Amino acid sequence: MSFDPNSKSLGSSSLDHALLDSAFLEEVTWNEQGLAPAIAVDAANEKLLMQAWVNREALATAVAEQRAVYWSRSRQKIWRKGEESGNVQKLVEVRLDCDGDAICYRVEQVGGIACHTGREHCFFRRLKGDEWAAVEAVVTDPESLYQK
Amino acid sequence: MSFDPNSKSLGSSSLDHALLDSAFLEEVTWNEQGLAPAIAVDAANEKLLMQAWVNREALATAVAEQRAVYWSRSRQKIWRKGEESGNVQKLVEVRLDCDGDAICYRVEQVGGIACHTGREHCFFRRLKGDEWAAVEAVVTDPESLYQK
Repeated sequence: MSFDPNSKSLGSSSLDHALLDSAFLEEVTWNEQGLAPAIAVDAANEKLLMQAWVNREALATAVAEQRAVYWSRSRQKIWRKGEESGNVQKLVEVRLDCDGDAICYRVEQVGGIACHTGREHCFFRRLKGDEWAAVEAVVTDPESLYQK
Repeated sequence: MSFDPNSKSLGSSSLDHALLDSAFLEEVTWNEQGLAPAIAVDAANEKLLMQAWVNREALATAVAEQRAVYWSRSRQKIWRKGEESGNVQKLVEVRLDCDGDAICYRVEQVGGIACHTGREHCFFRRLKGDEWAAVEAVVTDPESLYQK
């Protein structure tokens, strides 16, 4: 995905455009939409928090701002995790996998809630027989997350 | 992706075809290629092991055989993890995320090596400045992994 200097999402960010030419971004194998899966892991206890997506701009912004930043496919814009809920993911380190097509953000999860449902993480449904059963408790009322 | 009863890959597996109509597969939001990202986590210590992909057949086969099974995009076939190296991932549980478009396999990693490079996991490159530096040791000579 080539960088569009007129992109609204970039226009509203504080990203130094030169960062988009960084060599580390070239090492990532981006898919046909210019995306790679990004997996957030809690650096305190290694727990899987969530899986989302990054493009070049999201990854560059994450590194520049030292927080987890994703590309929202539904909203088609940069998504700074916690920008609405306050549950920011502070970046501890960024990892790349062996074939270069997946990213891991190791983070400090502010507020302890990664999921928009108010749970600690997003993988709260467990396969039981033929059904996915919610097996993790809601810690925070999700409505309260977005009323700040 | 609809199921092709003449699929060669399915023909070579022991999967009961009825499994492909299971309700739990309908709950997954498959992408335009019929795939979803699958993240393997070590159930013993929660560590992120790898990220790969599943389609309906791979996920159904994993559940039927209680081992991590993926869809190899490069080989366009079902990939039973460990079928060549012996480093099977025994399935402890399967999780689905909040928006239903990502899978987590919690596994017992036989042999302790998830990565084809001979490392414990695939996310062994850490961003340092503008470079991805390998920061995890090779535990097993990768050539020996595939000479069995």
